[in-house]
Amino acid sequence: MNKEIITKRIKAIRRELRKQRIDCLIITSPPNVTYTTGFMGSDSWALITKRQTFLVTDSRYTEQAQKECVGCRIIRRNDSEFLAQAASKLLRKLRPVRMVAVEKSTSFADFELLKKYVEARLITIANVIETVRSSKDSTELTCIRRAASIAAKALQQSLHQVKPGITENELAGLLDFQIRRAGATNSFDTIVAFGANASRPHHQPGKKKLKPEDTILIDFGAKYKGYCCDITRCFAICRSKVFYKKVYDVVEQAQAAAIKMVKAGIEIGQVDAAAREVIRRNDLPVYGHGTGHGLGLEIHEAPFLKANSKGRLRTGEVITIEPGVYIPGKLGVRIEDDVLVTRTGCEILTRGCSHSLSVG
Amino acid sequence: MNKEIITKRIKAIRRELRKQRIDCLIITSPPNVTYTTGFMGSDSWALITKRQTFLVTDSRYTEQAQKECVGCRIIRRNDSEFLAQAASKLLRKLRPVRMVAVEKSTSFADFELLKKYVEARLITIANVIETVRSSKDSTELTCIRRAASIAAKALQQSLHQVKPGITENELAGLLDFQIRRAGATNSFDTIVAFGANASRPHHQPGKKKLKPEDTILIDFGAKYKGYCCDITRCFAICRSKVFYKKVYDVVEQAQAAAIKMVKAGIEIGQVDAAAREVIRRNDLPVYGHGTGHGLGLEIHEAPFLKANSKGRLRTGEVITIEPGVYIPGKLGVRIEDDVLVTRTGCEILTRGCSHSLSVG
Repeated sequence: MNKEIITKRIKAIRRELRKQRIDCLIITSPPNVTYTTGFMGSDSWALITKRQTFLVTDSRYTEQAQKECVGCRIIRRNDSEFLAQAASKLLRKLRPVRMVAVEKSTSFADFELLKKYVEARLITIANVIETVRSSKDSTELTCIRRAASIAAKALQQSLHQVKPGITENELAGLLDFQIRRAGATNSFDTIVAFGANASRPHHQPGKKKLKPEDTILIDFGAKYKGYCCDITRCFAICRSKVFYKKVYDVVEQAQAAAIKMVKAGIEIGQVDAAAREVIRRNDLPVYGHGTGHGLGLEIHEAPFLKANSKGRLRTGEVITIEPGVYIPGKLGVRIEDDVLVTRTGCEILTRGCSHSLSVG
Repeated sequence: MNKEIITKRIKAIRRELRKQRIDCLIITSPPNVTYTTGFMGSDSWALITKRQTFLVTDSRYTEQAQKECVGCRIIRRNDSEFLAQAASKLLRKLRPVRMVAVEKSTSFADFELLKKYVEARLITIANVIETVRSSKDSTELTCIRRAASIAAKALQQSLHQVKPGITENELAGLLDFQIRRAGATNSFDTIVAFGANASRPHHQPGKKKLKPEDTILIDFGAKYKGYCCDITRCFAICRSKVFYKKVYDVVEQAQAAAIKMVKAGIEIGQVDAAAREVIRRNDLPVYGHGTGHGLGLEIHEAPFLKANSKGRLRTGEVITIEPGVYIPGKLGVRIEDDVLVTRTGCEILTRGCSHSLSVG
């Protein structure tokens, strides 16, 4: 990890801490630990004080942490200590620390332990790092672009092997293999749904064999150096039915309508509404999920694009746009791309990901 | 999911709730939601009252929930509501509910929301479901056995393709493909470490190519119907060096010593100590991680086998036994099997998983 980038991130976080008179922030959420230290392992916390950054980890991760972390001190806790104990012990050495904050996403159990061990005043805060993180820096964009290009290539390679008789599991496995081979992992468990199975947005692949008349929905992503992409494509292997084709076209129009709205400063609710409106106007059932979500170190992160979302898009945010139409027992269509919000509009990062085996 | 099994689980949980005078337990931890309802999706909570069980979910999951859940009512929340709001709304309809408990693993943020919306008295509790869950029922054992057999077969199939020049990524990908093809997913990101890379217990596979003199460490697992297995094997493709062979033998002896101790009623610390003692006696560095952990719906769950662990093993628990020796820059050896604790000893569930490409 580039030291300059980490320094810039920490600086932005410290600015917020100063405003709130916080002497030390305890970071317990794994993606936030990664963001502030470069560390990619788990079961570790980061502490940001006015002058220093620490990673509290254990023996499984010390060698890895030395490799990955820049500009932060690595504290190895004993196997017999809770993280809250090790963090509190460290805090006692760092006096004067009067006001300590911990992330609100911390479990109630860990909060209780901190309450017990930390001698300074302890408060909880939310979204300090998430807000900084939502706008991606150049290192992050490089990783997301790479994840998207690995995903696109993996899909292409797997589609060559699609033929009637293949199971959902096999197709998911082929795709995962190509992602792994390219040096990435899955950003979430790949969804492959044949025919009516696609009406469940989070269908788990099974033994179902592809029939010539079946449509295919694939929702998947690659994760490269911790950064995710998230893509959904729908295919028909034969000429698809007229109704399916109509639904597909409407979803495509809904996605285009939302993407057209995306630019820095736009109200999030307006982007969401643009997609839903196209589906409503075509007398199709409006999807119950959000129109999209931010992505980066997490597959779902701020901003969330929902009907009731407040706030505005910001330059550098990477979001999915993924409207769908679901008719239980009949069909499911979703088209999902990842777009980078720019000052004047957006850039589609997943444009390279094939839409054919063409529908139609 | 079998209704009788779920009923038995809920009954055991209600017994504990009665003792603590709790009228309703709000379950937020995903594996605990699965355990009590059969639901395999995410972003959903379960509520157990004296008479009923509820699943609070959203439109993405209602079709899936109807398929998976037995004996529980499905409540669909609006996209615009927090889970805490939907749960509180439900609670108001269920009067008289005087004392509500929520799991301590819940985030502080969700706890705060519940505190705001729940009208009854709200307390936190820990380990009620985890304790019931730690001893596996017949349905669970069937799934874990199946996961272990899928993993064993997948490893066998992948090992056939090992030859100098293959990368860590490719080998991980081949293994993952076989697991997927068999209808399972990974229980965690597969670790493949060649040569000295194995000294990092949680190494992430990379582009490193296998050299004839390299040793191979593979730590992986299959997840079948939500249930995990967890296996580590070490191989040498050529005749391994004398020192490696010695380390391997010691780790094998350490594992055997711990497994020999396993039976219901034994102090957990004694099992842990048995493995460490063998390594210490042989003047090798004692591993910093635990000797093992429970597994089931989670890859790491109670009981945890550490140097300072309190408590005793119970019949029906499934635990890993995984001592290791790590010498940074030189080698890493770990051998890991999953064992079922019985009244008189234990049963090794992963015996079918090959130890060769033999070392030696």
